[in-house]
Amino acid sequence: MYKTLPQDQLTLLTIKALKEGKKKELQQIMEELQPYDMALIYKDLPEKHQSRFLLQLTIPVLADMIQELDQEDQISTLQKIGKERSGKVLDDMDNDDIASLLENMSHERIQQFLSGMTKEESSIVQDMMNYPPETAGRLMTNRFVWIRDSYSVREAVDKLKTFAEFAETINYLYVVDDKRKVAGVVSYRDLLLADMNQMIKDIMYTRVISIGVETDQEEAARLIERYDFLAIPVVDDEGILKGIITFDDIIDVVIQEANEDIEKLSASGKAIDFDTKSHVAAYRRLPWLILLLFIGLVSGSIIASFEETLSQAVALAFFMPMIAGMTGNTGTQSLAVVVRGLASRDIDMKTVLRLIAREFGVALIIGITCAILIAMIAYVWQGSLILGFVVGASLLLTLIIGTMAGTVIPLILYKLNIDPAVASGPLITTINDILSLLIYFGIASFFIHSII
Amino acid sequence: MYKTLPQDQLTLLTIKALKEGKKKELQQIMEELQPYDMALIYKDLPEKHQSRFLLQLTIPVLADMIQELDQEDQISTLQKIGKERSGKVLDDMDNDDIASLLENMSHERIQQFLSGMTKEESSIVQDMMNYPPETAGRLMTNRFVWIRDSYSVREAVDKLKTFAEFAETINYLYVVDDKRKVAGVVSYRDLLLADMNQMIKDIMYTRVISIGVETDQEEAARLIERYDFLAIPVVDDEGILKGIITFDDIIDVVIQEANEDIEKLSASGKAIDFDTKSHVAAYRRLPWLILLLFIGLVSGSIIASFEETLSQAVALAFFMPMIAGMTGNTGTQSLAVVVRGLASRDIDMKTVLRLIAREFGVALIIGITCAILIAMIAYVWQGSLILGFVVGASLLLTLIIGTMAGTVIPLILYKLNIDPAVASGPLITTINDILSLLIYFGIASFFIHSII
Repeated sequence: MYKTLPQDQLTLLTIKALKEGKKKELQQIMEELQPYDMALIYKDLPEKHQSRFLLQLTIPVLADMIQELDQEDQISTLQKIGKERSGKVLDDMDNDDIASLLENMSHERIQQFLSGMTKEESSIVQDMMNYPPETAGRLMTNRFVWIRDSYSVREAVDKLKTFAEFAETINYLYVVDDKRKVAGVVSYRDLLLADMNQMIKDIMYTRVISIGVETDQEEAARLIERYDFLAIPVVDDEGILKGIITFDDIIDVVIQEANEDIEKLSASGKAIDFDTKSHVAAYRRLPWLILLLFIGLVSGSIIASFEETLSQAVALAFFMPMIAGMTGNTGTQSLAVVVRGLASRDIDMKTVLRLIAREFGVALIIGITCAILIAMIAYVWQGSLILGFVVGASLLLTLIIGTMAGTVIPLILYKLNIDPAVASGPLITTINDILSLLIYFGIASFFIHSII
Repeated sequence: MYKTLPQDQLTLLTIKALKEGKKKELQQIMEELQPYDMALIYKDLPEKHQSRFLLQLTIPVLADMIQELDQEDQISTLQKIGKERSGKVLDDMDNDDIASLLENMSHERIQQFLSGMTKEESSIVQDMMNYPPETAGRLMTNRFVWIRDSYSVREAVDKLKTFAEFAETINYLYVVDDKRKVAGVVSYRDLLLADMNQMIKDIMYTRVISIGVETDQEEAARLIERYDFLAIPVVDDEGILKGIITFDDIIDVVIQEANEDIEKLSASGKAIDFDTKSHVAAYRRLPWLILLLFIGLVSGSIIASFEETLSQAVALAFFMPMIAGMTGNTGTQSLAVVVRGLASRDIDMKTVLRLIAREFGVALIIGITCAILIAMIAYVWQGSLILGFVVGASLLLTLIIGTMAGTVIPLILYKLNIDPAVASGPLITTINDILSLLIYFGIASFFIHSII
C-alpha cells in the first residue's frame, strides 16, 4: 500500500514513525520501497532524523540504499553510522560502487575507509583501483557465481543455492575451466529447462564474448547494446575471469557518455548538475569562457586590421553577425553528427571518406541556397549589386569551410586518439568565426572600390 | 573459431562459401555469430550474393538478423525473400520491432506487409500501432511468459518449458490473477531456489512496479535505470497486463533520447547519421539555417540602426564578436545543464527557484571576472578608459542576461509542456546575440561623446 503514495507523504509518515518510535511501522514502509525511493526519503529527512533513520536499517538494506546516493551523501552517511557499521556496509556494497566512491579521494582517506572492511573485500577493491578510470576493470563486479565445466546441473544449482544472495540480479552462471579461463555460460533458464543429471559442459553456450580488463567502458557498452547481453565477462590478458559487467552499469555508462558529449559540445563544464554550488559551477565554466574571450579578441583584431575597409563601407558590418553565426552553426551541425556517430560505432577509412564527401555535398547545397538568398536580400536592402555579390560569395565559401572544419577536425582528433568532442561546439564556432571574418573582409577589400 | 576473425575476413569466407555452394561451411560460420555480426556481413556482401545468402538462413535466424538492420535495409530484405517467407519472418520478429518498422509507412503499405503474417500476430501488431509513438505501448513486446498466481512452482516450470523459445532473454515470469491483472513476479532464480511443490503465490514478489501503456518511453527508461530492473510490465487503465518492456529496448531509448537532445541543442537536424544521403541531410538542416539567416539579419539591422555611433567610433566593432560570442556561449552552457537535468529527473518549484538562483550566482561570478579582464584589455589596447568601461559594463550585463536566458527559457518551455531542447543552442545563441548587441550599442551610444 505504501508504494503508491507520493514521495512527500512517505517522508511525512517516516518522520512520524521516527518521532513516535514506531519501529514496526517504519520497517513496513521500508520493506515496500525500492532502494532508490528510500534514498529519496532519506535525503528529504531533517538532519536530526537522519541518524535515527539510519539506525533502523539493517546492513544489507543500508548498503542498497547508499548505492543510490550521490558521492557526497555516500561519504557523509558512512561517517554518520560509525566505523564498525560502515565497514560492514562497505563489505556488502558492490565493489564497483566502492571503487567509484573512492575514485577522487586521497590515499590516506582511502585507507581509512577500507580499514573497516574485511581483508578479502578490501583487497578486491584495491585491486580494482589499479585499473585506469573508465575501463572495464573499474566497472566490473565480483558479485557473480562461477561454476566449473565439470559440474552437473545439480551441482550448479546447489552452488547457486549456496551463493543465492550473491547472485541477485544477474541470470547467468559463467563456466570456467581448471585455469579459471572462461569456457562458457549457462543461463538460469538453461538450468530450469535441463535435466538435473545433465552435465554443464553439454548444455553451456561456448561462444562467449568477453572483454579485457583495460578496455574502455564505452566498448563494453557497445557490446551490451549490440548483443543485448544482460552481462559481459571481464577477463585479463590470459583469459582468466576477473569479474562481470552488468547491464545496469552499462545504462549508467551510456547516460554518462552522452552527458559528457553534451558537456563538451556545449562547453558547459564538467559534471555540473542541479545540485552543484554556484562558485563550483562558475569555476568549472570560467576556463572555457576566458579562452573564448581571447579568441573573440582575435576576431576583433581581424576586424581592426580591416578598419579602413570597414570605415569606408560601414554597411559591411551589418552582415558580419549573420555570416559569423551561420558559419559557426553549420560547423556545429556537422560536429554533432560526427561526434555522435563516432560514439556509436568504429569507423574505417572508407567510412571517413564517404562522410567527408557527404558533408561536402551538404555544404554545397546549403551554401548555394543561402548564398543566393542573402545576395538578393543584400541587394534589395542596400541597393548595391556588388555588396550582394560580396556577401553571397563570402557566405558560400564560409559555409563550405565551416562544414568541412566541423567534419574534419573531430575526425583528425579521433585519429590522434583524442576525444573528438574536445573540439567542442564553441571551439569550432570560434575557429569558424575567425575564418569567416577573414574570408568576408578579404573578399570585401578586393571589391571595396566598387562598393562605395 | 570464426568469431575471433575480423569482419572483412568473415565476409570473404562467406562469399567463398556462397560461390562454391558450401552450405555446411556457411552454416558453421553463421552458427558462431551473433545476429548483429551476421547483419554486418550481410550488408557487406555484393548485391548478387545477398539473395543467395538469405536463402541459406532459417526463419528464426533471419528474424534475428533482420532486427539488427536499419529500417531501409529491413524493408528491402523482406522484399527480397518473397511474401511467403517474409510473412513467417515477421511472425517470428518481436512485435515492437515490427511496429517501429511500420511506423512511417502508408496505410496500404502496412496492410501489404501484415497480410503475410498469421492473423493473431498481425492483430497484435495493429493493436500496438494504435498507441502514440514513443509510448510504453509501442515499445512493449508480447514475447513473455505469464503464469497464474494459483500455479505451483512445478506448473510454472512446465509452462516455461512449453514456451521456452518464447521467453529467451527475459528472466522473469509475471504472475497474473484471474482478471489478467499483474499480481506479482518471480525470477528464474526464485524458481531454481524454490521447492517444486511450493506455490507461486508464496514465493512471488508482489510489489511490482508497472507502467501504463500510454506513458512516455522516457519514463520507462527512468524506472529501469533507477531500479535496475531487467524488464517492466506494461498495463492498461484497469491494470491488465498487456506486455513487457525489456532493458535492451531501454538502452536504445536512452541512446535515442540523448541523440535527440544533442540534435536539438546543436540544431544538427533530425536523424542524420553517417549513412544519410547529402540531399536528405541538407534538406533536414536547411530550415534551421535559413531561419538563423533571417535572425542574423535582425542583428545586422540593429547594427545598422547604430550606424552613426559605429561610424563615429569604429573601434566599437572590434569588440562586437567577443561580446556576442561570450553571451551566446554562456547561454548554451546553462541550456545544456538545464536540458540534461530535466531529462534525468522531475523537478518541482523549489528546485527551479534554487536552479535560477544558482545560475544567477554563476553569472555574477563569471560576469565580474570577465568584465574586469576585458575592461583592462580594452583600455591597454585602445588607450581609452571610457571604452574600457563601456566594453566591461556591457559584458557584465550581457553575461548575466545570457545566462538567465539559457536557464529560464528552457524551464518555461518545460512548464508549457514543450520539449525544452527545442530552445536549441543556436536559438539561444541568436537571441543572446541580439540582446548583447542592443545592450552594447545602447551603452556605447550613451557614452559616445566621451569615446571619440
